[in-house]
Amino acid sequence: MQDKPRVLVPFSAEDLGGFPAGLRVDTWDGTGDPPRDLADVAMYVLPYAGGQNTTDVLAEMSGLRVAQSLTAGVERLLPLLPPHVVLCNGRGLHDASAAEHALALILAAQRDLPRWVRDQDAHRWAPHFTRSLAGSRVLILGYGSIGAALDTRLRACEAEVVRVARARRPAEHVHGIAELPDLLPHADILVSILPDTDHTRGLLGAKELALLPDEALVVNIGRGTAVDTLALVAETASGRLRVALDVTDPEPPPAEHPLWSAANVLITPHVAGGSATFYPRARRFVADQLRRFAEGRDLRNVVPRD
Amino acid sequence: MQDKPRVLVPFSAEDLGGFPAGLRVDTWDGTGDPPRDLADVAMYVLPYAGGQNTTDVLAEMSGLRVAQSLTAGVERLLPLLPPHVVLCNGRGLHDASAAEHALALILAAQRDLPRWVRDQDAHRWAPHFTRSLAGSRVLILGYGSIGAALDTRLRACEAEVVRVARARRPAEHVHGIAELPDLLPHADILVSILPDTDHTRGLLGAKELALLPDEALVVNIGRGTAVDTLALVAETASGRLRVALDVTDPEPPPAEHPLWSAANVLITPHVAGGSATFYPRARRFVADQLRRFAEGRDLRNVVPRD
Ligand SMILES: NC(=O)c1ccc[n+]([C@@H]2O[C@H](COP(=O)([O-])OP(=O)(O)OC[C@H]3O[C@@H](n4cnc5c(N)ncnc54)[C@H](OP(=O)(O)O)[C@@H]3O)[C@@H](O)[C@H]2O)c1
Ligand SMILES: NC(=O)c1ccc[n+]([C@@H]2O[C@H](COP(=O)([O-])OP(=O)(O)OC[C@H]3O[C@@H](n4cnc5c(N)ncnc54)[C@H](OP(=O)(O)O)[C@@H]3O)[C@@H](O)[C@H]2O)c1
Repeated sequence: MQDKPRVLVPFSAEDLGGFPAGLRVDTWDGTGDPPRDLADVAMYVLPYAGGQNTTDVLAEMSGLRVAQSLTAGVERLLPLLPPHVVLCNGRGLHDASAAEHALALILAAQRDLPRWVRDQDAHRWAPHFTRSLAGSRVLILGYGSIGAALDTRLRACEAEVVRVARARRPAEHVHGIAELPDLLPHADILVSILPDTDHTRGLLGAKELALLPDEALVVNIGRGTAVDTLALVAETASGRLRVALDVTDPEPPPAEHPLWSAANVLITPHVAGGSATFYPRARRFVADQLRRFAEGRDLRNVVPRD
Repeated sequence: MQDKPRVLVPFSAEDLGGFPAGLRVDTWDGTGDPPRDLADVAMYVLPYAGGQNTTDVLAEMSGLRVAQSLTAGVERLLPLLPPHVVLCNGRGLHDASAAEHALALILAAQRDLPRWVRDQDAHRWAPHFTRSLAGSRVLILGYGSIGAALDTRLRACEAEVVRVARARRPAEHVHGIAELPDLLPHADILVSILPDTDHTRGLLGAKELALLPDEALVVNIGRGTAVDTLALVAETASGRLRVALDVTDPEPPPAEHPLWSAANVLITPHVAGGSATFYPRARRFVADQLRRFAEGRDLRNVVPRD
């Protein structure tokens, strides 16, 4: 019995349609106290919406071989794991949820939803003509897993999509990041879905933002660090750019931060990935990943460590 | 010169890429005073966002043969026109705009955007898990021109769509209205895109709303009269249903109407059709319609009069 590797997961056997026979599985969803005696945990699936203690327990897991995150971005987890631990991320699990939220932010900004909400609070009926998404050119910066899911949605909305990633992929009509300065002046809407890395931090600074046309919309659902927040605030204060952010830098912005009340800025509190459509996908993925681990097969979504 | 039929349109020659040679064309966009001596106007294209005076002038147009509305719903115009006047509506011109707005309302409700707007006003960052559109079943009631455009968008968002019109059209997977009671209990989201007619008024009353599952979302972008407003308010007061409306009954709701501050109700002031993507389509359509009129060919979008 003790020979079976021990696994800690945030789902019940019922959630996952049963646990693989070759594993000892404990369930902890991040609420309440963590289980004790974690030294022999071989694989740990971190709760998705967990607090500080979901990473604190890593210090006790001296026998850990695999850490499975359910988030796509793992920049906070990386420094907590010794190099021999295999780290897997949640790439793909958030595609539908995050792309849908990006679309919600874009539509809210184009169709003036924040204004209608505030008008409703004042019992005010004051129609006016709005922008639309149809007919707009949307630049997706960070054209990966979520970007592709957003692309499908945008094209169904009759928008034109321009795709940018690190390197050019001409067969997929993806531009390389070096072309960004030539593309920005022609974007009605810029959506950043960049991860947080040494290369993405500050990638959208005052200079890049200045290349966008007047009244362009800047959306960020990747990581807040990709954008120079104060440069962004300056461009909205002047009324030149419009902004919708699910991620910010700093995150959350302190109560007195100018971002909160800047003109034409819509903020959601990092909720793009966390919606009802995520859990069924996460459960299917974790069930599969546990079977792979039990059978010694290759795991999915392994993050390259350098 | 006087033999040429006179036409009054809300667009300039430049807007339309020139006027057809066989017409005398005056431009009036509904702002400022109307042109004088309207008795010989043979065709009148009503300004889209015009006020009362854009219909008042009909009384002077004793020679009118064709009235072209740029709206899809023409229930207010119908009683103002003698039976011999051919009425054409704006069916199709609003598809992208109205479908996009319906999608914006659905996403706003599923992803809690009104809550985030109000939290932002309080400088509050309080994330929580939301619903999603992906994986939801959406019933489109009034599956016509706008409904089909919405369908495309919803399926790109990984939603399932159920289509309902007057009569069944099995080849298009469209259900007939008689099946509605069997379909309502399985809808996560109900979108009404019904016109205002004797048959649609009050079609969604307390009985029909009661058939929807708990926490279902009711969206109306057709005409407010299709829904019993007080029944809807009652279902939201109890917390059972969620609501997003672009059209209301009465419209606008008076300042003291309970709809304004009902729980889980989002109101936009009849702006679904009026967005940037509308005008290019409207101009192309009117240019074509003027050519048809000048050449004596069949007009598009003729509304059957009974
Ligand atoms: N707001 C939320 O709730 C939420 C939810 C999920 C994810 N996220 C964030 O979104 C990020 C993307 O997720 P994903 O699943 O789409 O990841 P992904 O599939 O790995 O895509 C990332 C994309 O970013 C591009 N990229 C990376 N560094 C770049 C650079 N320096 N310059 C230009 N492009 C660069 C990559 O280019 P290549 O294709 O050339 O590699 C790739 O196209 C995650 O890392 C996470 O931080 C946020
Ligand atoms: N909020 C806005 O800004 C806005 C903008 C544009 C339009 N609208 C409204 O939206 C309405 C629909 O526009 P559209 O262009 O999509 O019109 P449409 O193409 O004529 O479609 C109307 C649909 O409603 C169905 N219908 C009519 N009476 C019905 C009944 N008694 N029971 C069940 N279904 C019924 C029709 O069924 P059949 O297919 O069987 O005939 C058709 O599918 C317009 O009439 C207008 O009032 C609102």
